[in-house]
Amino acid sequence: MRIDIITVLPELLKSPFEASILKRAIDKGLVEVHTHNLRDYTTDNYKTVDDYQFGGGAGMVMMIEPIDKCISQLRSERDYEEIIYMTPDGATLNQRTANQLSLKENIIILCGHYKGVDQRVRDQFITREISIGDYVLSGGELGAAVLCDTIIRLIPGVLNDETSALTDSFQDNLLAPPVYTRPAEYKGWKVPEILLSGNFPKIEKWREEQAYMRTKERRPDLLDD
Amino acid sequence: MRIDIITVLPELLKSPFEASILKRAIDKGLVEVHTHNLRDYTTDNYKTVDDYQFGGGAGMVMMIEPIDKCISQLRSERDYEEIIYMTPDGATLNQRTANQLSLKENIIILCGHYKGVDQRVRDQFITREISIGDYVLSGGELGAAVLCDTIIRLIPGVLNDETSALTDSFQDNLLAPPVYTRPAEYKGWKVPEILLSGNFPKIEKWREEQAYMRTKERRPDLLDD
Repeated sequence: MRIDIITVLPELLKSPFEASILKRAIDKGLVEVHTHNLRDYTTDNYKTVDDYQFGGGAGMVMMIEPIDKCISQLRSERDYEEIIYMTPDGATLNQRTANQLSLKENIIILCGHYKGVDQRVRDQFITREISIGDYVLSGGELGAAVLCDTIIRLIPGVLNDETSALTDSFQDNLLAPPVYTRPAEYKGWKVPEILLSGNFPKIEKWREEQAYMRTKERRPDLLDD
Repeated sequence: MRIDIITVLPELLKSPFEASILKRAIDKGLVEVHTHNLRDYTTDNYKTVDDYQFGGGAGMVMMIEPIDKCISQLRSERDYEEIIYMTPDGATLNQRTANQLSLKENIIILCGHYKGVDQRVRDQFITREISIGDYVLSGGELGAAVLCDTIIRLIPGVLNDETSALTDSFQDNLLAPPVYTRPAEYKGWKVPEILLSGNFPKIEKWREEQAYMRTKERRPDLLDD
């Protein structure tokens, strides 16, 4: 899989890909992540990527031309299945979307900034608009990093133990049950006895019940899906 | 405002705070962000922070002792209004929560990793559990960066133009209207004429209608709130 990220702040996207699971996936050759500085696609001396919005109002808008140039360049090199725009008014990211996207070969992610991109970019080039949640970020870069993380960890071979992703929250529309590790008692706070019993069928049942109860209490909406 | 982030991967949290609005807020002295490496609070030679889960199953669990030590150390230095745990089964972050948290003086954010933290940490220390969305990340670090971004940009003085945050999506339960910038025509794609008219009351009305229509089409749930 190849992911191309278009951004005005490539330096912001450095460390998320230089540590942990994302770095390991890149090192193993399971995914390539390339960031493209939008300023490299400008034609004026000031490397302008944004301008005032038509009709007045606070906040700058990202111009269509550099984005068009960057996307056209990438498209001339290979086919892309998705050109994704990170924006708070996009479709809310969920595990199902992450699963779908993890099966793609080549995707572009465009990071919005300031007041967002010129609407014509969205109308002409974007195949999918994604929001990571109902809150506003200072730019699309963290959203892009989050999207990459959710996708990349689902690529087979990325996680050490493949069953590990399958028992995560949301994969079966249930939250994960509580987990405990050593010591069995700490400052008087004890681990539930069932987990120390060695009776694995019973433990499995307890976990299912806990997952169901936690979901019902915290996120009953997931059970309706 | 002061934010203390507890993590096993402090290097992952570097670049988000070294660029853009977050860096500017830190440079201006409007917020302090400190990251604490959980391994500095371990007592064994291997700096162990995780262990197998009781009852069996894939995935490691973060141990209570180093977390207790780190939180106790921080609490001995100052009072914290919130100790937040980033976890996919927490309450889903929204703009209202970001607004609330931006008014706090001192908060701790604990990043989960692997299969999460020992449940006793959650029972004993955590005041609030937050998820940034219905998807699984390889760790809480990106979630913590997202949470910090949403909070910090709301602190007065952080954004250059304070009205800018107020016209963002979600602040009034409406998505933002489409925006356009120069050129007025690009490859035959034109900006809506109303925006070039100079008639500001009409433009304002058009924007309100567009925001309402976009919200109704994409996120009718926001209108019910």
